[in-house]
Amino acid sequence: MNRNIHPILLCGGAGTRLWPLSRRDYPKQFVRRTGAESLLQGAARRVSGPLFAPPIVVTGHDFRFLVIEQLAGVGVQPQRVLIEPEARNTAPAILAAAFALSQSDPDALMLVAPSDHVIPDTEAFRDAVAKAVPRALAGDLVTFGITPTRAETGYGYLQLAPDAEPRADAPQNLLRFVEKPDATRAAQMIASGDFLWNAGIFLFTARMLIAAFCAHGPAVLIPVEAAVRAACCDLIFMRLDPVAWATAPDISVDYAIMEKASNLAVMPFSAGWSDLGDWDAVWQESGPDARGNVASPHSTAIACADTLLYSTSAGVELVGIGLQDIIAVATPDAVLVAHRSQTQRVKEAVAALQHKGAVQATQFRTAHRPWDENPHGLWAKRIEVAPGTTFNLQPQHHAATHWIILSGVAQMTHRDQVHLLCKNESLYVAAGGLHRLDNPGNVPLILLAVQTEAEGGVTTNHPQSAVG
Amino acid sequence: MNRNIHPILLCGGAGTRLWPLSRRDYPKQFVRRTGAESLLQGAARRVSGPLFAPPIVVTGHDFRFLVIEQLAGVGVQPQRVLIEPEARNTAPAILAAAFALSQSDPDALMLVAPSDHVIPDTEAFRDAVAKAVPRALAGDLVTFGITPTRAETGYGYLQLAPDAEPRADAPQNLLRFVEKPDATRAAQMIASGDFLWNAGIFLFTARMLIAAFCAHGPAVLIPVEAAVRAACCDLIFMRLDPVAWATAPDISVDYAIMEKASNLAVMPFSAGWSDLGDWDAVWQESGPDARGNVASPHSTAIACADTLLYSTSAGVELVGIGLQDIIAVATPDAVLVAHRSQTQRVKEAVAALQHKGAVQATQFRTAHRPWDENPHGLWAKRIEVAPGTTFNLQPQHHAATHWIILSGVAQMTHRDQVHLLCKNESLYVAAGGLHRLDNPGNVPLILLAVQTEAEGGVTTNHPQSAVG
Repeated sequence: MNRNIHPILLCGGAGTRLWPLSRRDYPKQFVRRTGAESLLQGAARRVSGPLFAPPIVVTGHDFRFLVIEQLAGVGVQPQRVLIEPEARNTAPAILAAAFALSQSDPDALMLVAPSDHVIPDTEAFRDAVAKAVPRALAGDLVTFGITPTRAETGYGYLQLAPDAEPRADAPQNLLRFVEKPDATRAAQMIASGDFLWNAGIFLFTARMLIAAFCAHGPAVLIPVEAAVRAACCDLIFMRLDPVAWATAPDISVDYAIMEKASNLAVMPFSAGWSDLGDWDAVWQESGPDARGNVASPHSTAIACADTLLYSTSAGVELVGIGLQDIIAVATPDAVLVAHRSQTQRVKEAVAALQHKGAVQATQFRTAHRPWDENPHGLWAKRIEVAPGTTFNLQPQHHAATHWIILSGVAQMTHRDQVHLLCKNESLYVAAGGLHRLDNPGNVPLILLAVQTEAEGGVTTNHPQSAVG
Repeated sequence: MNRNIHPILLCGGAGTRLWPLSRRDYPKQFVRRTGAESLLQGAARRVSGPLFAPPIVVTGHDFRFLVIEQLAGVGVQPQRVLIEPEARNTAPAILAAAFALSQSDPDALMLVAPSDHVIPDTEAFRDAVAKAVPRALAGDLVTFGITPTRAETGYGYLQLAPDAEPRADAPQNLLRFVEKPDATRAAQMIASGDFLWNAGIFLFTARMLIAAFCAHGPAVLIPVEAAVRAACCDLIFMRLDPVAWATAPDISVDYAIMEKASNLAVMPFSAGWSDLGDWDAVWQESGPDARGNVASPHSTAIACADTLLYSTSAGVELVGIGLQDIIAVATPDAVLVAHRSQTQRVKEAVAALQHKGAVQATQFRTAHRPWDENPHGLWAKRIEVAPGTTFNLQPQHHAATHWIILSGVAQMTHRDQVHLLCKNESLYVAAGGLHRLDNPGNVPLILLAVQTEAEGGVTTNHPQSAVG
């Protein structure tokens, strides 16, 4: 049977455990290093191609445009963006997607995938999905089980049925979902060989998922169905009804139905996966060198071992000296230094910062965001232009910008007009306006570009006042 | 005998070992934490009062105004600022001060003191200086010997004469200067009880110092004498002649004369001293709490021990989790994380950064300096004003400033004129100009204040151009 799979990208996580890189107001699935794609972009790319329909994304109100922008960056246009009025964990989010999908096709296949995981081998993943399709079409709730590599206490586990093959290349019978174990129990489970990690990736039809909620989760079903029915649609955005949504319980899909359902199957997957759940996982996934170190650009390791040095910005140099088993993450407004064994306590730190009223607990301080790393807000950049030269305008300079001359003389070409500006003069240019910037003088030209509109296309004329 | 002592404040150090707080272009003696005085200010205050003449400061060209400004901040006006055309270690600097001083009084008493040390007990220090005076007037070169508290390998030592009392409250005979020892030798010296630390603090007459150079350091004497004779004087600034100065050897006063002279004495001093020579010393001097931690404002320690967490800026939150014996120093453009036992390797790190071309090796990046902490450069600050309210203008807003309206409406009162500005309009106000800033509208007013002149007093009119 050849039918499209509808990817459901869950994009509502707050990613607090990767603070300060990830914060409530700009969580880790969106974070994009220079030149690299975000986790969301990676997830979207992974579920594109002949097997798949365009994805449905479930996210929060504040992130709806960011989702569109980031997906466009990897050539993906979602079929729909479901907007959660508030975060309600995975059960309501997945069920809402099922209801939205079943409006056009009640038997549509849904591949539910978190947007903040890393799966390096795209082909292996698509292959596993394809192999799981028949079982999902047969009416089972198929989950993907990761071959465990350590006695991790941070994940839930999947217990295989006695007849199952944990390393098989086809869906297996699943006995049950197991909640996060303690260290002893985790070690026992790993030793038995009968358990896989629960990665929160699922394949099923919309119909079967809704049926499972009918049977096991009516308390979720009723408000979510109402929130979808009363949703407000605008282009591809579907804003779930906030009144109905507010009555939906905050509950995971595992707890709501998977731990109760009997039509379960698991597709083993061993080609590599990480949820980048904490900084220790990031260290592990980043490929430590022979001494166990991971050092980003703009970081310098001297006599370190088993250490992650990560500067998120070209504006911050990070130096580590004589460190062992340390995670150091430097952003322009917040720095984390933690022992590798303690990275799960980052949430505590965020709570402590929130308690003391530090904005960095949840937000990035606008003034510190470099232009090339954050698509939102306001940027100011100091630019020096040598005498007699032309400044090469980067794409961000095509946005609406105030150009302030700090010293020297600037010749700015805008449409067909040439403006000469001296110290303390300024020029406001709407998006897309400026064509050329020259320093015609004999001294260095220093100017400040203050970008006031993140989105392009603003072309309204705005006059300026001058007072000496 | 009651005559004034002329303090010679040596203010030419680069302070590289306290990177990133201290950098070549703004070394540690000038660094001022919010509300606290700089080390230079502390040193100047320590040598003021009835015993002392106004100080002579020896510093580099780039720091001459900063010296004046910082001394004025503690009510001190130097009698002279000697400007070294380039750094040449302590021997030429001290000798130049002796020549400058002997122009008016060849028998003037000189108290040579580094400007970047900490001596908490000012009265004890002044008392020790007073007790050393007779010996200096009698023609000896008196050094101050710190009672050692550990087998430190980072300092030079002073070996007492056999008849000396290391804990006496009067100058003692000194056998010799000893260069920095290795760990074994340092332990032996501490055990013997015959050694004190050489803190680089001296008392002698200008005449006797010059005489010592005549006897032991003619290679220093000749160029330095010429550099003072051909110096260019401007108000209190005395710029040493660069041509003569360039031929002076780069040599410490210990090595040039103290290790050779026989008219030596030492005044023991046990009331507390630190050269803040590295981050470990800073940790020690900062008064660790019961768990051994030192945490600055804007830093948070969770499950740490024997650790320094130091954020230099209100704009950077620093968090440490599970750390033991770690130094973490966060500035807006550079972060150091080092094991406490490795802090002497910071110079290596600075060299590595210089090698890779990172400006942070030697400079502070202007764009990252917050307004309230740095007197130089360019500041941009985002300001929000609630509807119907007046924004209270801080002193820094009285500097020359571009005000850019990002959203809402601003009513700006300048002299007798009231200006209404809307989104994307801007207003340039010269220093001291703006009187009031109101939000007369119904929505929040968000504006950006870009300060382009650090020094006040600029009142020239500058027109602006506008292009939409």
